[in-house]
Amino acid sequence: MTDLPKRVDIQEEGPREGFQIEPGPIPTERKIELIDALSETGLKKIQVASYVNPKKVPGWADADEVVKGFRRHDGVAYHALWLNEKGLMRALDAEGLEMIGSISTTTSESFMIRNTNRGFEENRQVQRNQIRIYKQHGVPVRRASIMTAFGCNFEGDIPVERVVWAVDDILGVAREEGADVEVLSLADTMGWANPESVKRVVGAVRERWPEKRICLHLHDTRGLGVVNAYAGMEMGVDLFDSSVAGLGGCPFAGHKGAAGNVCTEDLVFMCEEMGIETGIDLDRLIEAARLAEDIVGHPLPGSVMKGGSLTKHRQKTAH
Amino acid sequence: MTDLPKRVDIQEEGPREGFQIEPGPIPTERKIELIDALSETGLKKIQVASYVNPKKVPGWADADEVVKGFRRHDGVAYHALWLNEKGLMRALDAEGLEMIGSISTTTSESFMIRNTNRGFEENRQVQRNQIRIYKQHGVPVRRASIMTAFGCNFEGDIPVERVVWAVDDILGVAREEGADVEVLSLADTMGWANPESVKRVVGAVRERWPEKRICLHLHDTRGLGVVNAYAGMEMGVDLFDSSVAGLGGCPFAGHKGAAGNVCTEDLVFMCEEMGIETGIDLDRLIEAARLAEDIVGHPLPGSVMKGGSLTKHRQKTAH
Repeated sequence: MTDLPKRVDIQEEGPREGFQIEPGPIPTERKIELIDALSETGLKKIQVASYVNPKKVPGWADADEVVKGFRRHDGVAYHALWLNEKGLMRALDAEGLEMIGSISTTTSESFMIRNTNRGFEENRQVQRNQIRIYKQHGVPVRRASIMTAFGCNFEGDIPVERVVWAVDDILGVAREEGADVEVLSLADTMGWANPESVKRVVGAVRERWPEKRICLHLHDTRGLGVVNAYAGMEMGVDLFDSSVAGLGGCPFAGHKGAAGNVCTEDLVFMCEEMGIETGIDLDRLIEAARLAEDIVGHPLPGSVMKGGSLTKHRQKTAH
Repeated sequence: MTDLPKRVDIQEEGPREGFQIEPGPIPTERKIELIDALSETGLKKIQVASYVNPKKVPGWADADEVVKGFRRHDGVAYHALWLNEKGLMRALDAEGLEMIGSISTTTSESFMIRNTNRGFEENRQVQRNQIRIYKQHGVPVRRASIMTAFGCNFEGDIPVERVVWAVDDILGVAREEGADVEVLSLADTMGWANPESVKRVVGAVRERWPEKRICLHLHDTRGLGVVNAYAGMEMGVDLFDSSVAGLGGCPFAGHKGAAGNVCTEDLVFMCEEMGIETGIDLDRLIEAARLAEDIVGHPLPGSVMKGGSLTKHRQKTAH
């Protein structure tokens, strides 16, 4: 009936997204504590820090210390974010990070200008430069991200054809520069997606580029993060970005109350309940979510961390 | 591809559920204020009060005053809840309520005993008596509810066959007593459902009783309320109970942090974004949700009331 995958991979972005937006300051050792807790949950990819300008993002002024401090676990890939060559060099200097290059664009030039002060043409040049820099440093470019793939506060509804155009455009640049993009990340940056638009966009992209793996990056701004992920799974999507406890949010999204990524443990709960394997220990993940709430010092949006898993009820009622 | 309905009807339960569980006391005029605001949104059914024992549910000690006080709007049906003949008589004495009788059972005898102090056999007798009392007072019995239709904290996972058995059992009682049940309400009382289990249960019930209308009553305990509603819509379900702002929760569900019903405005947002008509003005509903939050004096779980609708962004970007 549907293309539900047997297994779903989850890329945890909570530490990076969450600590970026919190008014803080959050002590370095507490950031490390959360990363260490997440490493014990079965997550296979964790984005641990953001190498950005400390003046612009004071929450990540301690990126070097955080990355030095956490314990590396076998089988877990640790990633970081950077936005320019300086950030990339800091990440290259660190030990134990998995270096994967990523290029990105958006369907909405208005948003791009607000977010990066660049238009489409200039962004293509930036992408070319980025790919060359990655190559110089031996960093493979594997991921292309399309922001505002479902709608934009500045440009409104985004037609499916424009998403396909944006993917085609960025893949063209990658091809010309000899980069082999494996993953297309479709981002609902401002919470415009609904289950049917997810199916339309994923369907169109999948039909045109059946060999690429699609990742969904879904913001939960209007409470549809989990249902949009499910709609993606119904179309065979098996790769998601998410944030433990729902940590984070987009400081550039142009409105107050912008929720962060879909919540990791709510997504894992749904998958496991449907028999879709994630490799993640939900109860440990819930503990990490509660730790995240303790660290930021205010309630976070996750639901399963409040309602609890069904494990203890099943144990109690097992015959 | 799917059986998504063209139109969805929503039965608002926020005032009744919410004011029942709030530690309160909430002034009568504020309860009336919320009901009046909801009447302006396009909602066609609103459950406005609970005629229950004021010693057990002090939040509804003022049910008579609330029901006297709100403004009746043409085209809106106002409902109340009662649990025994005394409550029914109070509702019959009130003016301007739509009187629809409902009988209920559960898949889980353990939960029934905890919730009502009755077993299955005794509950059948109670249902028979209820139907006779309804008949005496000229109240049509139209709805049969199956609680814990997807899982139970006291009995664990509930096989689909047991749900079908419970529906068959309660419809048998109704038939013997000459009651014409039109709506089968399947309730995820404790937040055990997932999209695939919703599809299995709805599919089995729909196949056996294709002439009945199915209603889903979904608690959002673990964040899957909206996705479970979507899965129901994919199976053709077009009737849902919900609570504005996510007001409410089940005081008997046996664990802390039990979230209430799925949030009305999040559900309406999803429907309208997918082109499914609800007849509801989302922006007015969001105002009512914010009013509900103001009335209870603490944050409520709804998302769209925080993220906002897309209306103003679309207006801004329209050409």
